[in-house]
Amino acid sequence: MISERMKEYVSKSSTVRAMFEEGKRLSSIYGEENVFDFSLGNPNVKPPESIKEAVYEILDKEPPNLVHGYMSNSGYEDVRDKIAGDISKKYNLKLTGNNLIMTCGAAGGLNIVLKTLLNPGDEVIVFSPFFGEYENYVRNFDGKLVIIPSDRETFEPDLNRLEDKINSRTKAVIIDSPNNPTGIVYSEKLIKSMAGVLNRKQEQLGTSIYLISDEPYREIVYDGIKVPFVLNYYRNSFVVYSYSKSLSLPGERIGYVVCGSETDDFDNVMQSLNVANRILGFVNAPSLFQRVIARCLDSKVDVNIYKKNRDLLYNHLVKIGFSCIKPSGAFYLFPKSLIPDDVEFAKRAKKFNLLVVPGSSFKCPGYFRLSYCISYDKIKKSLDSFDKLIK
Amino acid sequence: MISERMKEYVSKSSTVRAMFEEGKRLSSIYGEENVFDFSLGNPNVKPPESIKEAVYEILDKEPPNLVHGYMSNSGYEDVRDKIAGDISKKYNLKLTGNNLIMTCGAAGGLNIVLKTLLNPGDEVIVFSPFFGEYENYVRNFDGKLVIIPSDRETFEPDLNRLEDKINSRTKAVIIDSPNNPTGIVYSEKLIKSMAGVLNRKQEQLGTSIYLISDEPYREIVYDGIKVPFVLNYYRNSFVVYSYSKSLSLPGERIGYVVCGSETDDFDNVMQSLNVANRILGFVNAPSLFQRVIARCLDSKVDVNIYKKNRDLLYNHLVKIGFSCIKPSGAFYLFPKSLIPDDVEFAKRAKKFNLLVVPGSSFKCPGYFRLSYCISYDKIKKSLDSFDKLIK
Repeated sequence: MISERMKEYVSKSSTVRAMFEEGKRLSSIYGEENVFDFSLGNPNVKPPESIKEAVYEILDKEPPNLVHGYMSNSGYEDVRDKIAGDISKKYNLKLTGNNLIMTCGAAGGLNIVLKTLLNPGDEVIVFSPFFGEYENYVRNFDGKLVIIPSDRETFEPDLNRLEDKINSRTKAVIIDSPNNPTGIVYSEKLIKSMAGVLNRKQEQLGTSIYLISDEPYREIVYDGIKVPFVLNYYRNSFVVYSYSKSLSLPGERIGYVVCGSETDDFDNVMQSLNVANRILGFVNAPSLFQRVIARCLDSKVDVNIYKKNRDLLYNHLVKIGFSCIKPSGAFYLFPKSLIPDDVEFAKRAKKFNLLVVPGSSFKCPGYFRLSYCISYDKIKKSLDSFDKLIK
Repeated sequence: MISERMKEYVSKSSTVRAMFEEGKRLSSIYGEENVFDFSLGNPNVKPPESIKEAVYEILDKEPPNLVHGYMSNSGYEDVRDKIAGDISKKYNLKLTGNNLIMTCGAAGGLNIVLKTLLNPGDEVIVFSPFFGEYENYVRNFDGKLVIIPSDRETFEPDLNRLEDKINSRTKAVIIDSPNNPTGIVYSEKLIKSMAGVLNRKQEQLGTSIYLISDEPYREIVYDGIKVPFVLNYYRNSFVVYSYSKSLSLPGERIGYVVCGSETDDFDNVMQSLNVANRILGFVNAPSLFQRVIARCLDSKVDVNIYKKNRDLLYNHLVKIGFSCIKPSGAFYLFPKSLIPDDVEFAKRAKKFNLLVVPGSSFKCPGYFRLSYCISYDKIKKSLDSFDKLIK
């Protein structure tokens, strides 16, 4: 009796559930400490102490009907102004709270942006491998997802193919850097070139093509690398952000969408994002955590913990013969699977108590994803299983 | 450049913004204390102290990566079990956490239910006056809203017309008791009769017709009245709940959907609600507040404050000649407008610094809504303006 579309989703999701159940089964046989679950992207690093302190201070000092009450669907004005000011300082921009909407995480942000932009049949381009939810979000608004395989050496988007694929129905391009699942970070040069392509095609076609940059991993970078801020390079940009990873708050559903004033149709775009927050049922980003974030703009989780995990796992895998690009951000490795069939490979890995996600889940068969947001000790203990697997 | 659908919404929403701006303008001329804003449903009664205490205790005692982390898209198992147990005790049911999904408020709950049920073109019945967002939510999934005017004496649904309107495309009926905007509470007798109609039509048509009961005002009732729990009367029911009003936490976006095990296609329905939470971008109800709620199941705002407001405003309006049904719940009055054109009436009320919402916003012209979730003193001060208005 459920809808046709949901039938498809429910049957697909039962595969994921089966995998989850299998993990539980393995734990019950071998003990939890001997099962190595690299499948989930749930941050294991603690949120900074400042979060707790901010909550205490807000509950002690601010009126409860303000803290827990309704506000504009766009979020508290003072919170938006503070975040916009912080972004402006960091990236040398002139943004105010009017450029920013508080959202229920990046997932909420992406949905209000796509609701704002898409007419049925409009095309949205992504580069594979990509975070699988993009397909669902685009489908929510009857858009059409167009997948372009990224370069398999660098995992960078192929800009020639991008230029080829853009047509009059192309409404947006979604990028995700630092990237899930590859961990690569797009360079300034790449963003500039991509902006060049988009500007050229906009002019040629006489349309607006929006660049949607999904950046939940913006702060999770290593080796001093900088993530370019797309608003500085391309006019029609949205940056969709979440505090899920930078502050280890994924359950709190708190993030924002920011958009420059020079964006085509700016006033209507911002008003539409506001209305979309309401009519899609988000209403507003959770209120207490909006106020918490505003007090914690200088806080960040200890990224060094992830870096140590990355180094341990990456170095070992490469040493024993896996082929893998070294990630500069996020908390994932995306090695080649040892056999072309990545789903079969994930099954075989399970025999050594290694839970991994096949690349097919990111529309990139022949690879697999490892999330290293688990404890260092657990990773250390797992290395032996990788040795056995490769043999 | 925004989508066609959003253009409509944005132009409509500018009317609401204009009203809001007008309120601000009046305040700047006459002083905020002399402008009587009865237009917003933002609770003014304080959240119970137990909320703050629960937050402190959770942050002190529970591991932060649990408190702020990802969990199942359905919500924490322990939280769902506790709430299900509490409902079971109150309403003599046998529910477990498997019957319940934590949601981003009732708005999130309604959206995952409608996503689960609706194929494009499926019909959803509501009784006018009704909360305007239902129209948007049904439209999100290409459903068709079918509006049946309620009886204008009692504001109860007309069950004969309901029986007439149900056909093979009817997927659901949405009710909202205690009602926004009328404040009436549906009696047990009414719910039983409605269940009778639905059962009869289900059998006749060989379809499943779901009753969706939106209950954010469940706990806001007066004069010892009881709100019947629909799961006890009709098999294919969803109760959609929010803590926005019962705990004055509207900004926190926390609520649930509960559904009985005997519901048609129960397993798929629950799995679909879980998946819909994810793919619509809610992902999960905010995590800290899930855990807060579980510790505050016996808490409630001081409903007596709303009751005093109701009595003051209702008694005065009726005394001076307004025609209005006495509400047994929620915090709204829905009197007849003094002239048939309710939009014009709302304009005239503004001349006396009274901000009210025309009944047309609830698809019920000739009436207007007053929200009495403002301070008692403000209501007292406003009575004089109502006297002038009626003259």
